[in-house]
Amino acid sequence: MTRSLGLVFAVIIAAVLNPPANAQSPRDDIEAALVTFAAAFNRGDDAGVAAHYAEDGAILLPDSARVDGRANIQAFWKGAIDAGLADLTLKAVEVGGSGDIAFEVGEVSYSAPDKTGARSTATGKYIVVWKKGTDGVWRLYRDIWNANPAK
Amino acid sequence: MTRSLGLVFAVIIAAVLNPPANAQSPRDDIEAALVTFAAAFNRGDDAGVAAHYAEDGAILLPDSARVDGRANIQAFWKGAIDAGLADLTLKAVEVGGSGDIAFEVGEVSYSAPDKTGARSTATGKYIVVWKKGTDGVWRLYRDIWNANPAK
Repeated sequence: MTRSLGLVFAVIIAAVLNPPANAQSPRDDIEAALVTFAAAFNRGDDAGVAAHYAEDGAILLPDSARVDGRANIQAFWKGAIDAGLADLTLKAVEVGGSGDIAFEVGEVSYSAPDKTGARSTATGKYIVVWKKGTDGVWRLYRDIWNANPAK
Repeated sequence: MTRSLGLVFAVIIAAVLNPPANAQSPRDDIEAALVTFAAAFNRGDDAGVAAHYAEDGAILLPDSARVDGRANIQAFWKGAIDAGLADLTLKAVEVGGSGDIAFEVGEVSYSAPDKTGARSTATGKYIVVWKKGTDGVWRLYRDIWNANPAK
């Protein structure tokens, strides 16, 4: 093999092993999705929240059953909005993975009213498995969380 | 380029894009690890349980704080064993991902004694992010679970 052909091989293999940075590191896309997810929730837009999930997404709820599919996920989030949950914040702590699947470890906080209407803040932690759609958009595929200790 | 060189290119690219089946599908490795994880727990071997986690692993506990590092994870599992938890079962429901990171959605059950010593069974669901070590062994990297509704 000539040296120039060797170089061609090296370039091709490097391109295959190292796709463009935006394909390798979904962190920016995921952080942007967390912002629009929380904004949708905080304006009471359950459809806007649900649009962040894959059509075949699932949420694994604490002390409740698994919820499968975007329509059912939307119904869950509508219930949370109707129950008065608000001030949702989502923060990516760790993002990893490769290809069309990424994982995110995150922190969540929100406020909820008690029976008197007084609001208190709760915090929790979560892992989301994100999936990149054929349209290039990262969506929540599997979503599980649990509560932090009460303060 | 000659046709034979084109074939060489195609073979190289195919090899890079399609690593051996055992590298692409960690499901068998993960299911085997679940068996030895549960066996270690059920014989009261907290070190054996902890060995399934990456040195920099973390568990995200319901209603408690995040626990980082294999030594602290071992202490957590020792506490669970000392509290009388037993009959642990782990079942992989979904396994995905690529490269050295995989995710698993799973189901867990165990028994725990009440104050009278009578045992009852609890079930939950979890997501584990698995990481393949430089030694080729898949270990739990991030581990989060929550409870199913009480029956």
